[in-house]
Amino acid sequence: MTVTDPVALLGEHLRDDMEQVNALIRRHMQSQNAPRIPEVTAHLIEAGGKRIRPLLNLAAARLLGYEGNAHLGLAATVEFIHTATLLHDDVVDESTQRRGRPTANLLWDNKSSVLVGDFLFARSFLMMVESGSMEALRIMAESATALAEGEILQMGAAQNLATDEATYLRIIRYKTAALFSAATESGAVIAGATPAQRRALAEFGDALGICYQLVDDYLDYAGSAPSLGKKVGTDFAGGKVTLPVILAHAAGSEQERAFWKRCIEKGERGNDELEHAMALLHRQGALQATRERAQEWSDRARAALAELPAHRLRDLLDDLTVMLVTRIN
Amino acid sequence: MTVTDPVALLGEHLRDDMEQVNALIRRHMQSQNAPRIPEVTAHLIEAGGKRIRPLLNLAAARLLGYEGNAHLGLAATVEFIHTATLLHDDVVDESTQRRGRPTANLLWDNKSSVLVGDFLFARSFLMMVESGSMEALRIMAESATALAEGEILQMGAAQNLATDEATYLRIIRYKTAALFSAATESGAVIAGATPAQRRALAEFGDALGICYQLVDDYLDYAGSAPSLGKKVGTDFAGGKVTLPVILAHAAGSEQERAFWKRCIEKGERGNDELEHAMALLHRQGALQATRERAQEWSDRARAALAELPAHRLRDLLDDLTVMLVTRIN
Repeated sequence: MTVTDPVALLGEHLRDDMEQVNALIRRHMQSQNAPRIPEVTAHLIEAGGKRIRPLLNLAAARLLGYEGNAHLGLAATVEFIHTATLLHDDVVDESTQRRGRPTANLLWDNKSSVLVGDFLFARSFLMMVESGSMEALRIMAESATALAEGEILQMGAAQNLATDEATYLRIIRYKTAALFSAATESGAVIAGATPAQRRALAEFGDALGICYQLVDDYLDYAGSAPSLGKKVGTDFAGGKVTLPVILAHAAGSEQERAFWKRCIEKGERGNDELEHAMALLHRQGALQATRERAQEWSDRARAALAELPAHRLRDLLDDLTVMLVTRIN
Repeated sequence: MTVTDPVALLGEHLRDDMEQVNALIRRHMQSQNAPRIPEVTAHLIEAGGKRIRPLLNLAAARLLGYEGNAHLGLAATVEFIHTATLLHDDVVDESTQRRGRPTANLLWDNKSSVLVGDFLFARSFLMMVESGSMEALRIMAESATALAEGEILQMGAAQNLATDEATYLRIIRYKTAALFSAATESGAVIAGATPAQRRALAEFGDALGICYQLVDDYLDYAGSAPSLGKKVGTDFAGGKVTLPVILAHAAGSEQERAFWKRCIEKGERGNDELEHAMALLHRQGALQATRERAQEWSDRARAALAELPAHRLRDLLDDLTVMLVTRIN
C-alpha cells in the first residue's frame, strides 16, 4: 500500500506553523531547575507522534482565514496536555511500550511520569494565558477536566463486562474526543469564528475523535504490530472492555459469555485465550460492527466539515476523515 | 498549652467567605460521570486540613479592602491545586498516612489518586476562568509549574547528601512557598492592589511558605505524632534530605558523615539509626539552627506585612507568622 498519509499532508500544508509550534514545545518543556523534565518530555514528544491534535487546532484557525499567531501557543498547549495524559495513562495502565519505545515510567519511574505530567499540565495553562483568550482557556480547561473523567470512567469499565455501548461511547468521547474537539473549537475561537462555524468545528473534532478511538480499539484486535507501535491484543491483555468485546459478549451464546467472563473479569488471559477471543470477535461480526460505527462517526465528522467555508485545509481534513476509516478496510 | 490557634482565628474572622469557599469546593468536586472523584476528594479535603492557603488568599484580598466575590473562586482553586498535589505526592512518596488518616492511594489505588488529582488540577483552572482575571490565572499557572518543579527537584535530592542548603531552599520555595505566594499575590491582584502592595503580599506568602516548610521539616524530627497527624521520623525513614540532616552532615566528623551516608544513601535505616540520628542532630545544633532559619523567614514575612495598610486581618496574619515559630520553641 502506498497511500499518502493524510496527516502528513496536513503537516506539509501547515509546515511553517508547525515548525513554530515545535519550537514553542521545545522551549516550554525546558526547566532550569529540573533537567529530568525535558529528558522525559523529549523521550515521548520526539518519538514521532503524529501531532494530529495541534494540527487540528492550526487547521481550524487557518481554514477560517486567521492570519495571527495566537493559535500557535494553543496548538503547543494541546500537545502538552496530550503528552501529560500519556505520561499519566502509562503509569495508570502500567504500560511498557508507547510509540514503539519503552514508556517513560519504565525508563525512569512512576514518580517522574506523574510529576513531569503535572509540570506539562501547568505549563500548558501558562502558554494559554499567553494566547490571551479567556474563552480558549475555558474550552481547554473543560477538555482537561473531561480527559480525567474519561480515564476514571474507563477504570470503572476495566474488567467489567456490564459496560454497555453507551457507556463505552461516553468514555471515548471524554478521554479522546474532548481534546480533539477542544483543539478545533479553540482554533475557531481564536480565529473569531461565527457561532455556527465554532459549533461545526467543535462537532467535527468530537466526531473525528470518537472515530479515531473506535479505529484504535478496532486495530488493537485487527491491526499488525509495526503499524501500531504497540502489540496487538494489548486491550485484551489488560482486560479492557472496548466495543469489539462489548458487542461479541452481548451477541454471544451462554458458553461464549462464560468465556468472556473468565478472560476479562477473572483475568484468565493467555495466548490461547486471545486466539479464541479473536475467533469469537470475527464470528459475531464484532470487528465488522466496530468498523461500521467508525464509519458512521467519520460521516458525521464530514457532515460538520461541510458546513465550513471551502478551503484547501477543509479538503485535507476531509481526506483525513475519510482515510482514517478506509485504511482499515 | 492553651494558646489559641492563629489559623483558627483567621478562619473565624473570614468565616462568611470561607463558608462560600467550602460550598464552591463541594460543588466543583462533583462529577456526574465518575462518583470516584468526589469520594477520593472528600476523603482528603474533609479530613480537617487547616485551609491555610485559601485563608491567605481571602485575607490578602480583604485586607486591601476588596468587597467583591471573585476571590472566592481563587481561594477554592488554591485548595484544589493543593489537594491535587497531595494526592500525587502520596503516590510519588508511597505514603500511607496523611492528616492522621490512611492516604487515598492506600484506600483506593494509585490510579485513582493520579486521575482524581488531574481532575482537580483541570477543575481548578476552570474555576479560575470564572474569576475572570487573566493575571490571577498567570500567577496560579506559574505556581502550579513551580510546584511540579519543586517535587522533581526534591526527587533528585532524595537519598542525596550532596544537597546543600541553597538547593534545599530552592526546593521548599518551589514545592511549598510558591502556592502560598500565589494565594496572597492573586488575592492582591483581584483586589486591585498597587504594585507595591502586590509585591509585599507576594513576598509575605513566599517567606511564610518557606518558614512553614522549615517548621514542618523541623517537627518531623522534633515534633510529637498527634500534633502532626503523621509519624515522627518520616523524612528519615524515606531518606529525605531536609535542612536538619544537611546541617548535621556538614558539621559532622568523618565518622558521623559515614553514618549519614549509610543511613540516607545506602538505606540502612532502622529504629536504632533514627535514635542515633536524633542524637547527632541535637549534638550538632542542627535542629536549633533549623529553628533559627525558620525564625529568620518569619521575620521577613512580618517585614513584608508591615508595608501593608493597617487592618485587623493584617494583625491576624502577623500573629500567625509569629506563632508559627514560637509554638515550636
